[in-house]
Amino acid sequence: MFEEKDGLLKRELPLVSGKESGCATVVEIGEGESRVAIGGGHFAMIAGPCSVESESQIISLAHAVKAAGANLLRGGAFKPRTSPYDFQGMGIEGLRLLVKAKEETGLPIVSEIMSEKYLDYFIENVDLIQIGSRNMQNFELLKALGRVRKPVMLKRGFSSTIREWLLSAEYLLSGGNSQVILCERGIRGFDSLTRNVLDLSAVPLVKRLSHLPVMVDPSHGTGRSDLVPTMAVAAVAAGADAIMVEVHDNPGEALSDGFQSLTPDQLADLCRRIEPVLNIR
Amino acid sequence: MFEEKDGLLKRELPLVSGKESGCATVVEIGEGESRVAIGGGHFAMIAGPCSVESESQIISLAHAVKAAGANLLRGGAFKPRTSPYDFQGMGIEGLRLLVKAKEETGLPIVSEIMSEKYLDYFIENVDLIQIGSRNMQNFELLKALGRVRKPVMLKRGFSSTIREWLLSAEYLLSGGNSQVILCERGIRGFDSLTRNVLDLSAVPLVKRLSHLPVMVDPSHGTGRSDLVPTMAVAAVAAGADAIMVEVHDNPGEALSDGFQSLTPDQLADLCRRIEPVLNIR
Amino acid sequence: MFEEKDGLLKRELPLVSGKESGCATVVEIGEGESRVAIGGGHFAMIAGPCSVESESQIISLAHAVKAAGANLLRGGAFKPRTSPYDFQGMGIEGLRLLVKAKEETGLPIVSEIMSEKYLDYFIENVDLIQIGSRNMQNFELLKALGRVRKPVMLKRGFSSTIREWLLSAEYLLSGGNSQVILCERGIRGFDSLTRNVLDLSAVPLVKRLSHLPVMVDPSHGTGRSDLVPTMAVAAVAAGADAIMVEVHDNPGEALSDGFQSLTPDQLADLCRRIEPVLNIR
Amino acid sequence: MFEEKDGLLKRELPLVSGKESGCATVVEIGEGESRVAIGGGHFAMIAGPCSVESESQIISLAHAVKAAGANLLRGGAFKPRTSPYDFQGMGIEGLRLLVKAKEETGLPIVSEIMSEKYLDYFIENVDLIQIGSRNMQNFELLKALGRVRKPVMLKRGFSSTIREWLLSAEYLLSGGNSQVILCERGIRGFDSLTRNVLDLSAVPLVKRLSHLPVMVDPSHGTGRSDLVPTMAVAAVAAGADAIMVEVHDNPGEALSDGFQSLTPDQLADLCRRIEPVLNIR
Repeated sequence: MFEEKDGLLKRELPLVSGKESGCATVVEIGEGESRVAIGGGHFAMIAGPCSVESESQIISLAHAVKAAGANLLRGGAFKPRTSPYDFQGMGIEGLRLLVKAKEETGLPIVSEIMSEKYLDYFIENVDLIQIGSRNMQNFELLKALGRVRKPVMLKRGFSSTIREWLLSAEYLLSGGNSQVILCERGIRGFDSLTRNVLDLSAVPLVKRLSHLPVMVDPSHGTGRSDLVPTMAVAAVAAGADAIMVEVHDNPGEALSDGFQSLTPDQLADLCRRIEPVLNIR
Repeated sequence: MFEEKDGLLKRELPLVSGKESGCATVVEIGEGESRVAIGGGHFAMIAGPCSVESESQIISLAHAVKAAGANLLRGGAFKPRTSPYDFQGMGIEGLRLLVKAKEETGLPIVSEIMSEKYLDYFIENVDLIQIGSRNMQNFELLKALGRVRKPVMLKRGFSSTIREWLLSAEYLLSGGNSQVILCERGIRGFDSLTRNVLDLSAVPLVKRLSHLPVMVDPSHGTGRSDLVPTMAVAAVAAGADAIMVEVHDNPGEALSDGFQSLTPDQLADLCRRIEPVLNIR
Repeated sequence: MFEEKDGLLKRELPLVSGKESGCATVVEIGEGESRVAIGGGHFAMIAGPCSVESESQIISLAHAVKAAGANLLRGGAFKPRTSPYDFQGMGIEGLRLLVKAKEETGLPIVSEIMSEKYLDYFIENVDLIQIGSRNMQNFELLKALGRVRKPVMLKRGFSSTIREWLLSAEYLLSGGNSQVILCERGIRGFDSLTRNVLDLSAVPLVKRLSHLPVMVDPSHGTGRSDLVPTMAVAAVAAGADAIMVEVHDNPGEALSDGFQSLTPDQLADLCRRIEPVLNIR
Repeated sequence: MFEEKDGLLKRELPLVSGKESGCATVVEIGEGESRVAIGGGHFAMIAGPCSVESESQIISLAHAVKAAGANLLRGGAFKPRTSPYDFQGMGIEGLRLLVKAKEETGLPIVSEIMSEKYLDYFIENVDLIQIGSRNMQNFELLKALGRVRKPVMLKRGFSSTIREWLLSAEYLLSGGNSQVILCERGIRGFDSLTRNVLDLSAVPLVKRLSHLPVMVDPSHGTGRSDLVPTMAVAAVAAGADAIMVEVHDNPGEALSDGFQSLTPDQLADLCRRIEPVLNIR
């Protein structure tokens, strides 16, 4: 039953499904010593605040997440906010501060792009360009990033099927950009006790359908910092090539998403829990 | 229970909820004789092909839908397609052909914008600019259209809550554009016998929360031409200020969405069914 | 695309889909003068409290809903409650009071059965036996009611596909009971501003697939008394053969579901709004 | 945000949430030597066919799953089937064969009850009585099983919230039966590439809210035998107290659910993969 569906879908995805099986794509992020590989057996931990809030915040957090075990720094500069009256991010200034944090710590940086308009800034400054859930089917943005030669991370839309998600990745690959990481971050559900339903089955399923690396974001996936560590460990057990978590030194006062942020100490503890799971998979 | 939730939401929506109740916004589309009003008791029927396919197609269809009773012409020039290998629309040439159809028939035109990049073309040529479901939370596009002084139609994202949808409209209004129509077009469901679940309760609910006109698109809402007419009539009974349907002279050969397109004859029949429902509501 | 799916499904449903199209089933409820027919052009309005609460309540409400235009009385005696600590209904005593209300007003009665254990009481006292959403796939109960010669109303499970729903009806018909009415009552959604998503497209869709009458329950379908009347009218426009609404003389003090109950005056107003829609469909 | 919701819910669940935290319930299944404990650090692997099909099948499979590492035998005797024309299970004869398999192998047995009518047979013969997803809110069945002094496993309804699920467990506990195991088995989703969405976050979430053991069924949770082993391992990493999988010696010829069944060899391999995850959690 499912084999036939898988087969039909793979035919729709000549580039994302790949010709030869068993040959996983490795995406390389950043340069020099602190270069990070994701996929094909290479695992990465990405951490940082939901939003860049100030120079001191991002620099101290960058040091803290590095010390805790992260090898990539995340930070939102342009923030997709449901309400126009919510904090919209620091914008280009936020990118500038991320670069500063990178210079200080050596951690490559990940940040979300919301419009082609800022593409040049992202190409110049950001090591892994994130396309957020709300833009997973912003096809003009996908086409623009397909022309770029920089790694792109494509989050799953919050009610996208696996087929829609992989076809959006196909936009990137067919544009010529093969450095693509997929990120599962929870789908919309009916239960208000969690923010989303983290669909971990997507990890092994996508790996059957595609050679691209798959990352999991349990912070958005659950929306609850008390569930994040356990679900991060489960995601690693499910085969995730990277984990991305939100970290804040004072979650209660974060300008966005504090309720789902870990502290640096909790991140360090999480890294210790993930280690042995990586060793046995 | 729900009153309290409504109240909290209205406070998040100072412009969309409006200060004085009972005062519905009327959106005026096009100019001169063929000007069309939507909202505050004014009803419109919008029809046309999913995609503009050729000059002869759009012009003959424009005449046909006008004769059948439509007072606005829809036609996709830039098409959001799930697969990069599907027909992507005629682009700017498609807009040019729509304008030609407008000149021939007098029908104002509706078309979907997919990127700020083409905003000038849309401002110059299109009477009602559509933001599609996949871009409902493309906040950069919302901000750009908030600065425009042209009517905008905002489709509900396919798994957006009412709150998220209205907050996206708040982006438009807070940018200064008050000529906004909301469009319910079906939400993602679990049943593969229809394309989406047309959420008609959204019509009276949004009308309790906002003064903006609400349109219904039963073509995408059901994905089945055999259900479109009945659901269009039900939508009018539910209070819709406009109905938008896909029409094709040969649905079986449409380049996109033929399975959900009416023929011009079916549209004429639908207009005859809607008439008495408008009279008694 | 959908034609093929419809065809496959019909083959799974030899009895529910029926051999000859165009031949709608008429279900007859009650006896003598106050007999009520549903289906094949016959429309009925079913109203009453969520729960039978006392003799005076059900009798005064029965008079009130009859005066307002209802021709069937609903009332819960056995109540499926999410929490064991909530009011569970008056049970057999509740059925006795419903019968009393029927004797006083002549209205046939509808009530929900929750276990085969009480089947004899229901056969003896209730005119239309309701299988609730939570029991739509209680197959032992379906088999028991398939052997009965009394009309049965089968509510859709709150996240059942059309296929699952119709196959549950097939259990009833294949057991020998052909007096079956289907009832759409809202499916589970992701928006907390309504209790459920009323899926009105199910009405015309089921009518394409089956000869059985279809009823709509906008009280559970929306969970909001302020949306019930408009959605009831829309349901009639969509082709519903009957509407079932909860009515309470003092919704604020109902033992269950007060927030979605109409007053008798609101019911009278609703009946006046439905009348002309019936005339034009 | 979520802390407050958790707190409110716990107050609705005096027995399921428990007074003292940190004190997990241990459910003991079967008697004598082959007694199996689940919860409070005790882990179990439950395996067997979807349906009991014949004496030779269930006995050879019982030996096979025991050899592969299972310590409980599952087997459906009464089968909840969507269509009345599908194989409905062997009924009481199926229970008899399960008991025979238990006598031969010593494995305690798990089987689903579909009606109170057969309760005595289940009490006498079955070691862990399963309430299936479709009966999670069959409150009469819950009340009946609350009065029983035998372990009960309560599957989550396929679109039940955590609150509804735990309140159904509260029915059992408030009836006096405290030997209850919860089982996550996938919730209804919108993607046809899997049968359900396995909601692994439910495991740590339920453990925060309740002292009851939590089991995971990745066979129904994914519907795909190729995803079952990986998701079983992820479930253990997420904290599951037991895993239940369908096993068939010839999945392609199973009378039900073959597409999601493992072979005994695959089960043995899975047990080997789970072992080290148990050791590090």
